[in-house]
Amino acid sequence: MPYVNIRITREGATAEQKLALIEGATDLLSRVLNKNPATTFVIIDEVETDNWGLNRENITTLRKREADKKAAG
Amino acid sequence: MPYVNIRITREGATAEQKLALIEGATDLLSRVLNKNPATTFVIIDEVETDNWGLNRENITTLRKREADKKAAG
Amino acid sequence: MPYVNIRITREGATAEQKLALIEGATDLLSRVLNKNPATTFVIIDEVETDNWGLNRENITTLRKREADKKAAG
Amino acid sequence: MPYVNIRITREGATAEQKLALIEGATDLLSRVLNKNPATTFVIIDEVETDNWGLNRENITTLRKREADKKAAG
Amino acid sequence: MPYVNIRITREGATAEQKLALIEGATDLLSRVLNKNPATTFVIIDEVETDNWGLNRENITTLRKREADKKAAG
Amino acid sequence: MPYVNIRITREGATAEQKLALIEGATDLLSRVLNKNPATTFVIIDEVETDNWGLNRENITTLRKREADKKAAG
Repeated sequence: MPYVNIRITREGATAEQKLALIEGATDLLSRVLNKNPATTFVIIDEVETDNWGLNRENITTLRKREADKKAAG
Repeated sequence: MPYVNIRITREGATAEQKLALIEGATDLLSRVLNKNPATTFVIIDEVETDNWGLNRENITTLRKREADKKAAG
Repeated sequence: MPYVNIRITREGATAEQKLALIEGATDLLSRVLNKNPATTFVIIDEVETDNWGLNRENITTLRKREADKKAAG
Repeated sequence: MPYVNIRITREGATAEQKLALIEGATDLLSRVLNKNPATTFVIIDEVETDNWGLNRENITTLRKREADKKAAG
Repeated sequence: MPYVNIRITREGATAEQKLALIEGATDLLSRVLNKNPATTFVIIDEVETDNWGLNRENITTLRKREADKKAAG
Repeated sequence: MPYVNIRITREGATAEQKLALIEGATDLLSRVLNKNPATTFVIIDEVETDNWGLNRENITTLRKREADKKAAG
């Protein structure tokens, strides 16, 4: 009966991609620890880029810098 | 000072129902462990049905199958 | 398929008390939102009193002050 | 590589304030435990006031009572 | 920069099995959403069987019943 | 009434250091968002290095590599 919580930034993951995460995480627990898929929960939290910090900045700023670099590229 | 986090799918729980969860969880901790309601936190997270997986599928699909069955009833 | 996470300080809750929390939380979700107990998870985290802060101090200190007061009482 | 999750009620925190939380939490882990900012995650969850309970009531009610008091003041 | 939290019961998962979960979850996020492994966190929480409830009972009881059935088998 | 959850690897943080985290996080929420320390929770989870993955490996391995490098100095 595992519980898997996947937190990602909200940047347009589709329902199909999120289903692939659900399937993949469930299969992983089944394969490695023989856990029963019928009682495996997977919950995906999508977090606004303003609300996620890495290296003392938010992801909004990180993404902007990446886009600027690409445009300058 | 307990912390209770209740995660449910976002399927129309009303403010009244959510208050009933808050009251019920607070009372439970008070009754079983004599915890002080004044420092009992209850946080309810409502999760999109696309983002919640059980048995390798998302709850959107599960709900659709349940509705189809009912309609076919 | 709710998920309930109860976090309390590790101060000697017995298996019976923890079972009462599991039963009570499951019944609460069933009563208020008609959730199925067969897919209701309840996970209890017991946290060391040094690792839990309230009002800028840890619970170890709070408990010591409460005990001192009682002794002085 | 610390992970910091800050949960607050959704009551209008600005991107600037949330960035200040990200910076402050990252600096705190760096200062106290010498943790590397490059692998410090800070995630802020903003929770609806209907979904947050304290002292057996939701924060919507608490805020209304505070506003009423102020108005009566 | 995803964060993956896997919660399982503490029932003897080895360091090798836990590493397989870490690798598998990291690869899953990389494959499905092109997330960078260098900033993918995976945290595994092992929870005592007395502290995990499913279907209104704890996993200690569930495991005992399973073992009894097998012995009776 | 904020809730702050700090997750770090279990590598010998002292009670004093953990108290500094509690004080610092409480002060941060008070300074940035004017939150009341009396209802600010800070919970620190210390996670075994085998149970924390970054970049597809566990922290046990990362720490060993760091120590080897230092020894090879």
